[in-house]
Amino acid sequence: MSDHPHAPEVHLASVGTALPGDPVDNAELARVLGANEEWIEMFIGTRTRHFARDLKTGTVRWSLADLCAQAAERALAAADVDPGDLDFVVLGTATPDTLMPATVNNVVDLLGLDQVPTFQLQSGCAGAVQALSLGRTLIASGEYRTGLVIGGDVCSKHLDVDRDLTKAAPSDLVNFVLFGDGAGAAVLTDEPRGARVVLRHVLNRFTGLGRTPGQVIEWFGLADRHDDRQALTEDYKAIEEHVPVMAVEILWELLGELDWSRQEVDYILPPQLSGRMTRKITEQLNVPTAVEISCVADTGNNGNALPFLQIERLLEKMSDGQKALAVAIESSKWIKAGFALEKI
Amino acid sequence: MSDHPHAPEVHLASVGTALPGDPVDNAELARVLGANEEWIEMFIGTRTRHFARDLKTGTVRWSLADLCAQAAERALAAADVDPGDLDFVVLGTATPDTLMPATVNNVVDLLGLDQVPTFQLQSGCAGAVQALSLGRTLIASGEYRTGLVIGGDVCSKHLDVDRDLTKAAPSDLVNFVLFGDGAGAAVLTDEPRGARVVLRHVLNRFTGLGRTPGQVIEWFGLADRHDDRQALTEDYKAIEEHVPVMAVEILWELLGELDWSRQEVDYILPPQLSGRMTRKITEQLNVPTAVEISCVADTGNNGNALPFLQIERLLEKMSDGQKALAVAIESSKWIKAGFALEKI
Repeated sequence: MSDHPHAPEVHLASVGTALPGDPVDNAELARVLGANEEWIEMFIGTRTRHFARDLKTGTVRWSLADLCAQAAERALAAADVDPGDLDFVVLGTATPDTLMPATVNNVVDLLGLDQVPTFQLQSGCAGAVQALSLGRTLIASGEYRTGLVIGGDVCSKHLDVDRDLTKAAPSDLVNFVLFGDGAGAAVLTDEPRGARVVLRHVLNRFTGLGRTPGQVIEWFGLADRHDDRQALTEDYKAIEEHVPVMAVEILWELLGELDWSRQEVDYILPPQLSGRMTRKITEQLNVPTAVEISCVADTGNNGNALPFLQIERLLEKMSDGQKALAVAIESSKWIKAGFALEKI
Repeated sequence: MSDHPHAPEVHLASVGTALPGDPVDNAELARVLGANEEWIEMFIGTRTRHFARDLKTGTVRWSLADLCAQAAERALAAADVDPGDLDFVVLGTATPDTLMPATVNNVVDLLGLDQVPTFQLQSGCAGAVQALSLGRTLIASGEYRTGLVIGGDVCSKHLDVDRDLTKAAPSDLVNFVLFGDGAGAAVLTDEPRGARVVLRHVLNRFTGLGRTPGQVIEWFGLADRHDDRQALTEDYKAIEEHVPVMAVEILWELLGELDWSRQEVDYILPPQLSGRMTRKITEQLNVPTAVEISCVADTGNNGNALPFLQIERLLEKMSDGQKALAVAIESSKWIKAGFALEKI
């Protein structure tokens, strides 16, 4: 898929992020769950995460729309873009507040915007990349000039705090220790602005033909609520086996598409499943000359927010002419995703 | 938002649809619900609908992915396009089978496809139009040549058949009589093919700033299931008041964008909320020279499937040089949507 010869370059002008409340560390989490702190440390390798829901009382403190609007406001301020100048808003999430209205429309409402095209992508770990892909194509089409791309998840919607967790199986407990909540946003433009970073390439490809999903999130309608069902299920074995291999394949595919050598890459943004998995994958990616940009050990796996949290850390370091590659994998139905950034 | 001067024309080559099982008429529905047949007839004006779930036993007979794959196969066959030639697949739905994987990826799997970019839009009544908008932009960007755009919903996921419905309130019962299940798909191409219809324009704009949603669909995570909550809620008064007015505004906006006169429009595809509302809206649209293309009285409101069911009926009638306008409204957060087709 080559770019259209007349397509304008698409620029990332800024990023903003939002994490709900104070970080929850493993000691605090272990107390709430009645679990072992060392087990969390070893098995997941994540130190802290943030929750939109109060784990003790179950009270919802922030909706996904709240977090997305907060991140969007920060991104708009950082790029000095007025909300009224936005030609579109795209949101990628796996955990919308409601099925209707799509959460993106409540975000737009919170931003005080009207008369703007909105799109919401239903997607897991590849969602932020899909949203960047869609945003990039909208601008490359020449129909739109400035857009807002958001990614966010409130995974704690799935955590039943009323349950007695001392009896929960590890495959159930893991959802409490692996995931977190958060949101991120980026302003895309058709000319250099703010951070002056070019979005060189976006990869988004289904590779799940005939493959069992590595991760499933169910939702319940009134017709099919069963108390014995778990909403989130992961096949860790499959994820541990396939994700590092896919990450290396994505790296080489991106390098090939961009005609970049491995040595040219200044920063690498690896997949952020968990602190432990990210360390493993980064080793296998083997780009020793690149600086690793990761956040999952501090933020937890907050899904569609992660790439924006990584880009935020990247922008603090990146200087003119430097290049960055991001690799993302959605293990639900095995989507290969990634993108390339270059500061001009 | 004007089109890019270099953008290629985007063509609709074919449409395919899928409705689950036999039509369920008002007499049968009245028996199952313990409701009055005449009340359904009067209040909704819909004669039949199709359900993916067996209303008597609750058994799920078709998933959304099953219906979408069926519709997609029919669309591909009608356009004589090989699945392997697809450069992308887009699905618009309000009722995904699971939150992860996105249903579009299971559809692609059922089609035997791999290595293809997929997008799933979370959206209500405007979702099919948003999916057409996204598909059109992907092709107009010049990066993609042939794509599949799907819309579908399984609203019966929200219908709790185990409940004693003789005690249900009308605002609850209405969800059983208003909605249906189904899917539709269209093949989009960058050159004339199959039906040889040009997708001239797509409108998709949020207009809900500061407005209360007219329709809400909740989903339940394990953390927030409450038996006293209803998943679907509608504000009929607001819908009855705003939708006809918005429909007229959309009609005039589309005509203005296209520089078409009202007399030039050969076919009008009005919003399909219910048989009764559609009749009311069509009167107000007042395009007496245009043939109305509606299906809701036979299919029920099956959300994102509806525009494809209308296009299917349209293609049977449309001859060279004829023009059609479609108007769609999402009352959840008040999205104005529509599109224009012209046979060449």
